[in-house]
Amino acid sequence: MLVKLSLEDYAARLAAATPTPGGGSAAALSGALSAALLTMVCDLTIGRARYREHEEALRAVRARAEGLRKDLLALVDRDAQAYDAVIAAIRLPAGSESEKQARSAALSRATIYATETPLATADACAALIGLAVEVANRGNVNAVSDAGTAALLAYVGLRSGVMNVRINLKGIGEEDRVAGLSERVRRLEVEAEKRREEALAVVISRIGART
Amino acid sequence: MLVKLSLEDYAARLAAATPTPGGGSAAALSGALSAALLTMVCDLTIGRARYREHEEALRAVRARAEGLRKDLLALVDRDAQAYDAVIAAIRLPAGSESEKQARSAALSRATIYATETPLATADACAALIGLAVEVANRGNVNAVSDAGTAALLAYVGLRSGVMNVRINLKGIGEEDRVAGLSERVRRLEVEAEKRREEALAVVISRIGART
Repeated sequence: MLVKLSLEDYAARLAAATPTPGGGSAAALSGALSAALLTMVCDLTIGRARYREHEEALRAVRARAEGLRKDLLALVDRDAQAYDAVIAAIRLPAGSESEKQARSAALSRATIYATETPLATADACAALIGLAVEVANRGNVNAVSDAGTAALLAYVGLRSGVMNVRINLKGIGEEDRVAGLSERVRRLEVEAEKRREEALAVVISRIGART
Repeated sequence: MLVKLSLEDYAARLAAATPTPGGGSAAALSGALSAALLTMVCDLTIGRARYREHEEALRAVRARAEGLRKDLLALVDRDAQAYDAVIAAIRLPAGSESEKQARSAALSRATIYATETPLATADACAALIGLAVEVANRGNVNAVSDAGTAALLAYVGLRSGVMNVRINLKGIGEEDRVAGLSERVRRLEVEAEKRREEALAVVISRIGART
């Protein structure tokens, strides 16, 4: 499992001249790091008298961030597996007509799965950007910059996930599914960019006010 | 050393309610992942007849990306150490006048060091965004989306680094140094945003052309 590798070994595996792990796996990791930072800021805030009014909201944020960290760490491996399945399908024999049909069906199935994986990363990261806005507003001001970094890390998972969905869409033969996915990722992208800027603006304003 | 931790253990350390590792360390890791992806795309391109004209340029990019990956992995640990030194200085005794002076001097030194660390991350990531533009233009089209993800990951290291420099600037008593650093990070930020969008536009146009 990739998540059992050390940071330096994972980076070396990423750098290796093999298609996986690649950007999709790294994007999921970026999202997991975002979730971890949000948990940290919540825990540096919860239980402090000065932030008592935010405690309940931050407990809810923390619970969601913990779930998303787990999901995104799973996606670090799942993304690589999904792409490996696409490559395995490409390498199936395509001599006879029945082999060609079997290969085409396997490739379509594998491509749909390989599209769902970055979409899951993008969805999780979209949720994290929303949580980062909450943490930027409510979290301990001494750690609020980490909510800003969390928003940036989640944006990587979102935008890279959306890019990989778009690339894989070409391999899917079903037009309705393609149109639905296209529209869904477009909405995710627009919304996420707005919330990311919102999180960063709040961080900058709160740090400025402390000066 | 943090870089010897597994991905899941590092994420857990990041999530722990201690100031370090925090966003600065995660931002350096994001940069290291960017560098690793650029090396991968170079190696999936170099030696292929179709991309022969880009081989020399990509060999140079690859050498720089490898150096930057090493530097950024070192910064994953150095960022945490630098911040720990600030906290140690804050905790120094401040009873007598000479203790106060010693604490103030130690805090100023530690803060300068803690500012140089995210600045080093930001500088390395600014270089990576430039390399991502080159790789987006010259790399194997089948892997070009990874150059896009690399640009996004490097942007986290840059923008988070710049944010942390700005926060730490307040702790530095030397006005000339503060003004110089402020101007430097502002220029880095503007330039990086332009180049990131350039890399993503090239990726999108090359993938579209392949359709």
